[in-house]
Amino acid sequence: MAINTQVKADHNAPAITQILANYISSHPSKGWDDSVEHEAHRTFLNWLGCAIGAATHESVDAALHAIQELDPTQQASILGRKEKVDMCSAALINGISSHTFDFDDTHLKTIIHPAGPVASAILALSEKTKSSGREMIDALVIGIDVACRIGNCMYPDHYDRGWHITGSTGTVGAAAACSRLLKLDKEKTAMAIGIAASQPVGMREQFGTMTKPFHPGGAASAGLRSALLAKHGFTASAKALEAPRGMIQTISTKCDWSEITDELGQRFEISFNAYKPFACGIVIHPSIDACAQLKAKGVKPEDVQKIELRVHSLVLELTGKKTPADGLQAKFSVYHGCAAGLMYGKAGEEEFLDHVVTDPKLIELRDKVNATVDDSIHEASADVTAFLKNGEQVHIFVKHAIGSLENPMTDKNLEEKFHNLSDPIVSKETADQLIKLCWDLAKQDNMSKICQVAQGK
Amino acid sequence: MAINTQVKADHNAPAITQILANYISSHPSKGWDDSVEHEAHRTFLNWLGCAIGAATHESVDAALHAIQELDPTQQASILGRKEKVDMCSAALINGISSHTFDFDDTHLKTIIHPAGPVASAILALSEKTKSSGREMIDALVIGIDVACRIGNCMYPDHYDRGWHITGSTGTVGAAAACSRLLKLDKEKTAMAIGIAASQPVGMREQFGTMTKPFHPGGAASAGLRSALLAKHGFTASAKALEAPRGMIQTISTKCDWSEITDELGQRFEISFNAYKPFACGIVIHPSIDACAQLKAKGVKPEDVQKIELRVHSLVLELTGKKTPADGLQAKFSVYHGCAAGLMYGKAGEEEFLDHVVTDPKLIELRDKVNATVDDSIHEASADVTAFLKNGEQVHIFVKHAIGSLENPMTDKNLEEKFHNLSDPIVSKETADQLIKLCWDLAKQDNMSKICQVAQGK
Repeated sequence: MAINTQVKADHNAPAITQILANYISSHPSKGWDDSVEHEAHRTFLNWLGCAIGAATHESVDAALHAIQELDPTQQASILGRKEKVDMCSAALINGISSHTFDFDDTHLKTIIHPAGPVASAILALSEKTKSSGREMIDALVIGIDVACRIGNCMYPDHYDRGWHITGSTGTVGAAAACSRLLKLDKEKTAMAIGIAASQPVGMREQFGTMTKPFHPGGAASAGLRSALLAKHGFTASAKALEAPRGMIQTISTKCDWSEITDELGQRFEISFNAYKPFACGIVIHPSIDACAQLKAKGVKPEDVQKIELRVHSLVLELTGKKTPADGLQAKFSVYHGCAAGLMYGKAGEEEFLDHVVTDPKLIELRDKVNATVDDSIHEASADVTAFLKNGEQVHIFVKHAIGSLENPMTDKNLEEKFHNLSDPIVSKETADQLIKLCWDLAKQDNMSKICQVAQGK
Repeated sequence: MAINTQVKADHNAPAITQILANYISSHPSKGWDDSVEHEAHRTFLNWLGCAIGAATHESVDAALHAIQELDPTQQASILGRKEKVDMCSAALINGISSHTFDFDDTHLKTIIHPAGPVASAILALSEKTKSSGREMIDALVIGIDVACRIGNCMYPDHYDRGWHITGSTGTVGAAAACSRLLKLDKEKTAMAIGIAASQPVGMREQFGTMTKPFHPGGAASAGLRSALLAKHGFTASAKALEAPRGMIQTISTKCDWSEITDELGQRFEISFNAYKPFACGIVIHPSIDACAQLKAKGVKPEDVQKIELRVHSLVLELTGKKTPADGLQAKFSVYHGCAAGLMYGKAGEEEFLDHVVTDPKLIELRDKVNATVDDSIHEASADVTAFLKNGEQVHIFVKHAIGSLENPMTDKNLEEKFHNLSDPIVSKETADQLIKLCWDLAKQDNMSKICQVAQGK
């Protein structure tokens, strides 16, 4: 027999579900300044490149083969591939591919990767609704805002507890964005959020497996389905997010409601979105950046006697693998990161391929890297000195790595990253065309054009 | 930057995911005694009747209309309806309908409704795999066992925290059952469980809305999809259930692993499954049962001066609504339950229709019911005395209501319930045919036959 005790309960939460539903359904189109507008374009471009780049990865193959057992209709595009599937399945698969390389965007305050769930859901939906680029951007900004605000409300307790916060907040973010794109009224938008609130996705134990990128994909698919259900009259609790046994109090002991309500519609969390220049964990980035700067200064691998690296203890704790055996392990090796940065001047997905990681020349260089803990150095910084065979020393101190909020990727950096990811999949010419379409996103009459081009030739 | 602290962590959990995968993939077919085998038939019959009974409910209409936007292929049947959809969507919709009346089975120890997620997933899958009834029963017993054992491990903390335990454990149960039906090997079964472990569904705040029955439907759909993903090589953590940041430790503070491992493959949780005789919360059942017994003894509503009801305080706390205005409110009124029991001798979905609840004759009788708290009476019991106008008194004490484990529904009771639910949807003749097919489940060569008949004529 049910016993109605409650572990903890805040019965005085503001009406978060209604407040968000009102915001989602009524915020004016382009109701933000140019910097937010520009960030939305950057977020979309970065996400699209990541999704196309991983289009032929075995995780995407496996997911697509599973979905093909459902004999789906050809309704929405799979990015970087010829196949089409129903829109919920396209949201799933594009969400998986966009996070497969762990190279997508990061809302640094919560480490949510917000575009995965949100953009995957609305791009798939837009092929059916024939939405414009303007509508797409509005939905993207608002959906990301909803996901990240809920993340701010629960972080860090929720994440510490074991939830992969990208998927747990992503379902609601995707439902919010799809409700906006479907032009649902406030009441139905609240229902869409409510249905989504019963479907947080993702445990951190899955990190290192295909189920990690499944999380944004599953969230995108569930969020889109929630909006479709609400559109057709399916109901949910009007307090599904904030009630004592609603989503937020059930999956987090920290519930700071003001993180959701403060400056809602005025401050947009997409403004705090960052893009990875390097295809690995963010703690290695300052070290890679420093070594890439050594290369730019003319330091050649064969001239190096040793590299002295000084970093915060957290860097070695998380990424201290000295002799990574393959690409996956290399993502947890600051030593490999430094060697790749010095040898190639970059550390994209290619520089983490198995054959690069096991290249004897790279290993020789990697073994010259000596790392020392220095907690006087911030964890977002790195201090690198190259000792050359001719007795010279070259010193680089990186305070904020490229890709941080303080030192963001330039638009040109993002374009280069897009090319690195997409050229092998859809050709350089198509990548150029897509970059142009992305920068012109607000001018697109119909999102189908981008979807069509992104399938490749 | 991610901070890797953990709220709580048990690093010494047994290898639950592997243990269950081994059990699911290798337990011998019909590896249980006849009582378990019979209970599986009863569970299936009861679930099928509930699903057919609600087939035309507005929640099912809404869900189907949403799914039709995906233009699904005609792969699997929707019970009690003509439409077919892809198998994941059929799992969703049949899961919704089977729980819409809240009239399905209950694993009393955890209040999980286990057939909803499990049977909905495997029946939909069986139409594609052309599985036999034998294979279906094996998958049903094992899937329910997995869901309920995980429930036992987490209950009651997990439920108290806010999770609707049917949907949170149901995804894994459905994945287990589908893995069995797909004949996945141990490794792939572990992956299916692992993928499912990232998708617990359902918050208790949704009770009273369509999203409550969505929970078993969503779990069925997600569990089936997890098994299909694993079949095609999608990977997950091999410790996804038990690891410190795996499913169970993330969504429950109580983690009693022995509940999962003890007597695994020897004791089957389906043995503890119960079936509701009355379409309302289980605390009202003893009172309804007592009043139905009054009717059976010849007590007529018009002869009654008053009904004195003595029950445990929990009964009035949960279902003490004196003047329910409609069918939904009546489900929380022990007064309505008593009146319906005495007037009709039953309290199925029909006796909770609005027009019955507002019938002046029923209200007159309801107003004669006087309830008194007596905590010396167990919450699963009820003491009822009818004071008749002629001065006589008729006393009934119900220790264990019909439908409890101690006083289970007979097979004949289940057949009557099936008819009450299904006759209005698929005709009495078809219901008779389905009852026979269900009792002969183990002899079915191909489950498609039942699916076809259950669509109605």
